[in-house]
Amino acid sequence: MRLKLLLIIVTFAIHTNYSQQISSPDSKLTLTIKLSESNELIYNLVRDGKTVIKDSKLGIDLSDQPDLMGGFKIDAVVTSNFLEEWEPVLGEVDKIVNNYNQMQVTLIQPKEKRKMIVTFRLFNDGLGFRYEFPVQDNLKYFTVLEENTQIALTGDHKTFWIPGDYDSQEYTYTTSLLSEINSARGKNVDEISVKSIPGDNFVQTPLMMKTNEGLYINIHEAALLDYPAMYLKVDKNNFTLQSHLCPDAYNNKAYMQTPCKTPWRTIIVSDKAEEILSSKMILNLNEPTKFEDVSWIKPKKYIGIWWGMHVGTMSWNYSDINNVKLGEVDWNSLTPNGKHGATTENTKRYIDFAAKHGFDAVLVEGWNVGWEDWFGAWKEEVFDFVTPYPDFDVAELEKYAKSKNVELIMHHETSASVTNYERRLDEAFTFMKDHGYNAVKTGYVGKIIPRGEHHDGQWMINHFTRVLEKAEKYQICIDSHESVRLTGLHRTYPNWLAAEAARGNEFNAWSIGNPPEHETILPFTRFMGGPMDYTPGIFQIKMDYYKPESKYQVHTTLAKQLALYVTIYSPIQMAADLIENYERFPDAFTFIEQVPVNWSDTKILKAEPGDYVIIARKDKDSDDWYIGAITDEEARDFDVKLDFLPADKYEMTIYKDAPDADWEKNPMKYEIEKRTINKKDVLKLNLAPGGGCAIILKPL
Amino acid sequence: MRLKLLLIIVTFAIHTNYSQQISSPDSKLTLTIKLSESNELIYNLVRDGKTVIKDSKLGIDLSDQPDLMGGFKIDAVVTSNFLEEWEPVLGEVDKIVNNYNQMQVTLIQPKEKRKMIVTFRLFNDGLGFRYEFPVQDNLKYFTVLEENTQIALTGDHKTFWIPGDYDSQEYTYTTSLLSEINSARGKNVDEISVKSIPGDNFVQTPLMMKTNEGLYINIHEAALLDYPAMYLKVDKNNFTLQSHLCPDAYNNKAYMQTPCKTPWRTIIVSDKAEEILSSKMILNLNEPTKFEDVSWIKPKKYIGIWWGMHVGTMSWNYSDINNVKLGEVDWNSLTPNGKHGATTENTKRYIDFAAKHGFDAVLVEGWNVGWEDWFGAWKEEVFDFVTPYPDFDVAELEKYAKSKNVELIMHHETSASVTNYERRLDEAFTFMKDHGYNAVKTGYVGKIIPRGEHHDGQWMINHFTRVLEKAEKYQICIDSHESVRLTGLHRTYPNWLAAEAARGNEFNAWSIGNPPEHETILPFTRFMGGPMDYTPGIFQIKMDYYKPESKYQVHTTLAKQLALYVTIYSPIQMAADLIENYERFPDAFTFIEQVPVNWSDTKILKAEPGDYVIIARKDKDSDDWYIGAITDEEARDFDVKLDFLPADKYEMTIYKDAPDADWEKNPMKYEIEKRTINKKDVLKLNLAPGGGCAIILKPL
Repeated sequence: MRLKLLLIIVTFAIHTNYSQQISSPDSKLTLTIKLSESNELIYNLVRDGKTVIKDSKLGIDLSDQPDLMGGFKIDAVVTSNFLEEWEPVLGEVDKIVNNYNQMQVTLIQPKEKRKMIVTFRLFNDGLGFRYEFPVQDNLKYFTVLEENTQIALTGDHKTFWIPGDYDSQEYTYTTSLLSEINSARGKNVDEISVKSIPGDNFVQTPLMMKTNEGLYINIHEAALLDYPAMYLKVDKNNFTLQSHLCPDAYNNKAYMQTPCKTPWRTIIVSDKAEEILSSKMILNLNEPTKFEDVSWIKPKKYIGIWWGMHVGTMSWNYSDINNVKLGEVDWNSLTPNGKHGATTENTKRYIDFAAKHGFDAVLVEGWNVGWEDWFGAWKEEVFDFVTPYPDFDVAELEKYAKSKNVELIMHHETSASVTNYERRLDEAFTFMKDHGYNAVKTGYVGKIIPRGEHHDGQWMINHFTRVLEKAEKYQICIDSHESVRLTGLHRTYPNWLAAEAARGNEFNAWSIGNPPEHETILPFTRFMGGPMDYTPGIFQIKMDYYKPESKYQVHTTLAKQLALYVTIYSPIQMAADLIENYERFPDAFTFIEQVPVNWSDTKILKAEPGDYVIIARKDKDSDDWYIGAITDEEARDFDVKLDFLPADKYEMTIYKDAPDADWEKNPMKYEIEKRTINKKDVLKLNLAPGGGCAIILKPL
Repeated sequence: MRLKLLLIIVTFAIHTNYSQQISSPDSKLTLTIKLSESNELIYNLVRDGKTVIKDSKLGIDLSDQPDLMGGFKIDAVVTSNFLEEWEPVLGEVDKIVNNYNQMQVTLIQPKEKRKMIVTFRLFNDGLGFRYEFPVQDNLKYFTVLEENTQIALTGDHKTFWIPGDYDSQEYTYTTSLLSEINSARGKNVDEISVKSIPGDNFVQTPLMMKTNEGLYINIHEAALLDYPAMYLKVDKNNFTLQSHLCPDAYNNKAYMQTPCKTPWRTIIVSDKAEEILSSKMILNLNEPTKFEDVSWIKPKKYIGIWWGMHVGTMSWNYSDINNVKLGEVDWNSLTPNGKHGATTENTKRYIDFAAKHGFDAVLVEGWNVGWEDWFGAWKEEVFDFVTPYPDFDVAELEKYAKSKNVELIMHHETSASVTNYERRLDEAFTFMKDHGYNAVKTGYVGKIIPRGEHHDGQWMINHFTRVLEKAEKYQICIDSHESVRLTGLHRTYPNWLAAEAARGNEFNAWSIGNPPEHETILPFTRFMGGPMDYTPGIFQIKMDYYKPESKYQVHTTLAKQLALYVTIYSPIQMAADLIENYERFPDAFTFIEQVPVNWSDTKILKAEPGDYVIIARKDKDSDDWYIGAITDEEARDFDVKLDFLPADKYEMTIYKDAPDADWEKNPMKYEIEKRTINKKDVLKLNLAPGGGCAIILKPL
């Protein structure tokens, strides 16, 4: 890893309340800090002379001692520059430049004799800042009642939001003005079974906004460790956002011990939507990994015994008994229900298919006992993670998978009974390594145990970190579902391959689903923090194929499902449909066979949240490029310039919507065309309503 | 184990609401059940024709479905008899007779189509009953909002009570009428740092009462498993007690899955106080152990590095830093504070003393890193249970203790951070076995993590069970402190040697302490559930010996400290004082050297709660008998008949208060007398105020 570092430190003690400024490396952004009349710390952010964030207060309220919100004196301001280039273990690009100007403001409360530091890092693409609490006599342990970080916006921006919720992010996005946000009454709220929405004006991050002037603003956090996740409380009259943290049973937010720090609060700004998507600021704000060996962390394209459960052709459970006490059931004496998906035979069939079509791995859900009544009872001893159903032969499948050079991916559904999972984690990971598993999909469906905690609270954040750290000891990769959303921590914990933590493709199987715009918003929201295991690749779009009475469907064309393999970045990516469906469309399936999941370069060609996204990526292991283009419910035509391509001529294979394709009326109609193109050509793309297009470019 | 079993079953379906009765085997007690006009189940208890418990309702309120309190039909009543004799692994007696008449009442709610069984067991010494929920279609999972078990008393009885508290039992007892109970404003309430008292009329069990007619009534529970601990809510006007269960973060009480049952609710009744103490009903209501091998469960008389910390001559902590993050401190670089108790040298001194004086074991507290700021910060990562301080050489001490044939007792203070303990438990137990430890004193000082849970809640009850079950796998014995109080579970889990779970001797070192009556009430309250690690044997009574300004003291004479080794039953019993103090009184110390901690027979000679207790016990391993006699603040003289002794003549050694001894004015004055006595003799005992007397009888 090449690394350049420029560090210039300027220190000066401030005895008066004059403001201090830094600029971004390209001088476009200017951050100003000052003290208010009541000696609160205030910042604002200006871009090219125009205010992006108005004067906004910073501070923390404590449960157990006087607050850290005002009465400050500025003790010192230290500015510095930083430039490095680093290489992610897995990623969208080979190399990432981390370049910022930093201002560290040391605040003193003379009365309480306490010290707090606010560190601002100004990048070309935005601002990150965090609170830091050094070791000191009068601040050793403290309890955060609330973080009161303000982000005062300049107007009633257009906003892409989902409800703030301590337990779920599985909502469809609403596009509205800030003043129109109504989270507790939003779309699909009733559909989510485990939810905790604190009020009508709370929204999740990453929050994407667009001003009337066409400026794009994205707000999130980076490096969420030992602290609860942050939501934003929206003042619908003044357009000020204020941080709100996920509480515990006592309505405390965080238990802190100095030295400590909050996560970074991030504001990414650009007048080009494409630059929001290419920002690496959140990753850059995370610490480099401390893992000494990362050679075992491998990208994975996988299939699995999974979609069958969603469409009803298979079941997770082995039997139809409805009352399981772990360790008290004689599984061999039960009658199987005939639909159990995770059988030895079925798994071998998936292993064969994976081997034949070049997949790295096969996920098998429902392999372990307990699925008969795993959900909804808030049951602590729900799974043991080591006992297979009688029809799933772990040793035999280990041998078989190995002989076919295919990995099996473990599945640990916790049912959100996290104390149970933590108690069994060593045993579960040992079982995995004993049977050749290198990665696990974890799941947290349900109400959290310990009761009183939430999915996004400090205790659970620490749980996710504990799992990652223990997994590293076993050389295990994690793909977490129903976990907290990512905040760039895959830089620090590169074994966190991906998370779900948003509304995935599965909702299309059994709910009103994900509207056609969904996948054009996700890159600007959920994906800002890191990879998502969205499970694309559904070829059988309409669910009446399985159940004639079903009105559910995937809200895309088949071609768009292919395009998602490029527009969605994840080093663990599923071909989610049944293998029977892939066998019905072998020509379309060739795209999934070929598309990589690890890249050396990425170009955001065109993007507009809620409308369309076109992304080009270069395979890490070849000179091939891939392009994915998707649109929302509107048909769109694009002229795409190819001058970013390094070679002159390419053989292009294009998987596109048929002229009469339509996500609703004719979703599975596609065309495949192969021809030669030149980097100087302008590529014409015609996307159907809810459509997309996937392209392979091989240099000639 | 000899076992006799008589079982007669009579079944008849009840279509009308006539009452049903059973009597105790000796016919003294009669239990009647019937349905009320609104079809609630009602019971009452009569003794020798006199009502003990008036008509009282039974039922359970649920959070998530209609209650199980009324609308019942009686579907069947099954009566049976039971008689067995069983041998406890460790105990006060060799053999225990378990003899009861049982009535199982099956209740149906026709509307909800649900079934609940109430099982009553009537012994000669009292009544036990519990709720049972068989597997059924309409009751699979349910959440208990409250158990509404009524115990309607016949008058304003004299009561020995401590406050109902979800987190502590470390109170001194108040003796008052039921109508005078004022728990939240009771004595010593402010002294307890971690407490949760739900209201002014809640008391703990075991609750001891005495009626105006001289009837003794004791109320507790047996076999507390997978359910919260029970408190009693006192109706001060009608003298009705009602069960109240320890809540969780959501104010739910218990999460249940059929088949399941509540603990037994116990009412022990006698007109002789002595019979209350000799009752084995609570043990009998517990299930026999399932442990296949119990040979590793051994009684232990021990000394320890412990009292020095209470009197201030030693510290748990090694250094005086005040901010520890586990794994981030370089302990070797720190300056020791010079008072650290758990040093290799000090431990060897204790091992030498133990070997010389025939103790089984040495407890060492403060051996592991983290004590510098272990309390009060609600800190999760507080101890790791495997990292010794630099001055404590585990390997060297393992070798040294083995060479002296002395065991070391491990200490695991959790600081009530139970999630942390559970995550580390396997590692901690493995460390113990790797270093020759066979028993651990666990501690739960502080506010519980998971936050939202309490010491006595269902989650913690299950934690204690998990620890016992895991400990069995490692052949480890448990001595729990700040845990839930015992409910006879040492029958089922004989590795649960003892618990503290009450106000121990330690309070005398640094608080207003335990009044002289305290140890005369404990047998009727806390000890009813099982052994307590009270830590008797303090010879240096007044604390001004250590700190001239101290006004604290043990509220007994020295002779009474000796008598406690007989009046308190525990198979793990400490000689708690500093060895320097034992060396000052070598003649008195001979009693502690000789007194066993495991017995083959026990006779309660005289007892009155709050006044005095005289108990004789026979050594399990010899024909020697021991007698302990204690009084409260009043001097008392007794004539004790010795006709219970099997042999005719004994050599008696009597350790008694000097004539001018007094717990307050002259507590350390004692006399030792040796003479021969005959079983027909009447022994005259003269106990000083706060005094006692300890006797060894060796057959001639």
